[in-house]
Amino acid sequence: MAGGGFPRVPRTRPDRRRADAELSRKGADRMTREEFEGALRAIGARQYHDLHPFHALLHGGKLNKGQVQAWALNRFYYQVSIPRKDLTLMSRVTDPALRREWMHRVLDHDGTGDGSAGGIERWLRLTDGIGLDRGYVTSLKGILPATRFAVDAYVNFVGTRTTLEAVASSLTELFAPAIHEQRIHGFEAYYAFANDATLSYFRKRLDQAPRDVSFGLAYVLDNARTPEHQQQCLDALRFKTEVLWAQLDALHHAYVDPGHIPPGAFVPEGMTPTEYAR
Amino acid sequence: MAGGGFPRVPRTRPDRRRADAELSRKGADRMTREEFEGALRAIGARQYHDLHPFHALLHGGKLNKGQVQAWALNRFYYQVSIPRKDLTLMSRVTDPALRREWMHRVLDHDGTGDGSAGGIERWLRLTDGIGLDRGYVTSLKGILPATRFAVDAYVNFVGTRTTLEAVASSLTELFAPAIHEQRIHGFEAYYAFANDATLSYFRKRLDQAPRDVSFGLAYVLDNARTPEHQQQCLDALRFKTEVLWAQLDALHHAYVDPGHIPPGAFVPEGMTPTEYAR
Repeated sequence: MAGGGFPRVPRTRPDRRRADAELSRKGADRMTREEFEGALRAIGARQYHDLHPFHALLHGGKLNKGQVQAWALNRFYYQVSIPRKDLTLMSRVTDPALRREWMHRVLDHDGTGDGSAGGIERWLRLTDGIGLDRGYVTSLKGILPATRFAVDAYVNFVGTRTTLEAVASSLTELFAPAIHEQRIHGFEAYYAFANDATLSYFRKRLDQAPRDVSFGLAYVLDNARTPEHQQQCLDALRFKTEVLWAQLDALHHAYVDPGHIPPGAFVPEGMTPTEYAR
Repeated sequence: MAGGGFPRVPRTRPDRRRADAELSRKGADRMTREEFEGALRAIGARQYHDLHPFHALLHGGKLNKGQVQAWALNRFYYQVSIPRKDLTLMSRVTDPALRREWMHRVLDHDGTGDGSAGGIERWLRLTDGIGLDRGYVTSLKGILPATRFAVDAYVNFVGTRTTLEAVASSLTELFAPAIHEQRIHGFEAYYAFANDATLSYFRKRLDQAPRDVSFGLAYVLDNARTPEHQQQCLDALRFKTEVLWAQLDALHHAYVDPGHIPPGAFVPEGMTPTEYAR
């Protein structure tokens, strides 16, 4: 089509992302509790990142060491940012009961200092186990800029939106247990690095995520009192799926297909930095 | 390498992004004005987005109508965000002279209302000319989430860093005239949509960018008074190149190679939405 003149064709595409939710709202009526929960879950069915091709490769044993390292290295930035996200949310909450409930998420990630490892430490046991230097991982040097932009967008989201939207954005946890199960089984089946240490993060989250999300889901169902609130919650959850998806798109582009590593980003051993020339 | 056991190899990679600048600083000495300007320009030589493969395709007439539409649609979000970026910067400046100087950037984009089109209107003449509906473009529906995350990161950067860093991040304009020349020539050579209307944005920027950047460069060279200031400016400019690069990575991934369009994003006519299945 190059050089084809691009005849002007006015076009008005429906926003397909919103179509399902809006249909299920039957105009501007408030959805019932069941309809609303169904609309939230439909977002996961449609665009949670377990659908992303990168995860099929990761969980199917199709990635090499350097590609798994790149994933774990970049995902570490998400892990260390989650407590900042949760504290940003809490800093804007006026209800002590909600803050008290939410605090355990921070402790889950940071650890309580009583000898049981928190989520960040567990993730570092994974990066240890796949041959990444801890100092390099925690320096955050080498992560993809797109990882930083997506994760920071999530922190900024909860810092600027309503508490209801911030809580709704956490509801990707509704869909997380299934992907953690797949990951544990895939890692055990295909990768020799799988052991109690490297899998401990995912096994722990199988316990933690359902507790977190049962509170978060009830909060959202109880507090979305208008059609507008419900739409905001759906948009917030959709936004969060986009944050997760964009991280995998960037990994896939840099390290799988076409394998264009951006200037300055992590280059696994055995891969050569992508050459860009004028 | 799947299943290969991933033997642990501690690794300490130098941060290659910083290597050149740090070498040129000879330790922690303040660079001379010439050395500092050279270090700033070296970032452009190394990682300005004229090096990105997407631009080689765009300027070489290798993209089809839908791919050019995807580029122009996404880039529109950058265009409409630049005045917000500049006003965010200005809102934090205490020197009226600097605010007065910076204001013309906003007017360049927004237009002065006296009949001459601003940059946003000029960009819409481009999207008109390649067959995109204005209402759809300005709705911002269909842009890639990664575009939004990268552009918003830029706005947040100037809202949270020092004025010096904010000004330094604008210095990609040092490298812009060359790419605008390439684009004008490439479009004229290869695409039938090229005409005075669709090229007016780029032609105008050939006049505006040198004026903007001569002020910005002098400001940075004058106000980076310590080695730390100089390093902050280099980091800010590098950050900005990453904002630009990440936008092209996302476009390339979605619409060129491997051509995985994220759920909900723009699907050009003639392309089918990427199917993702569990």
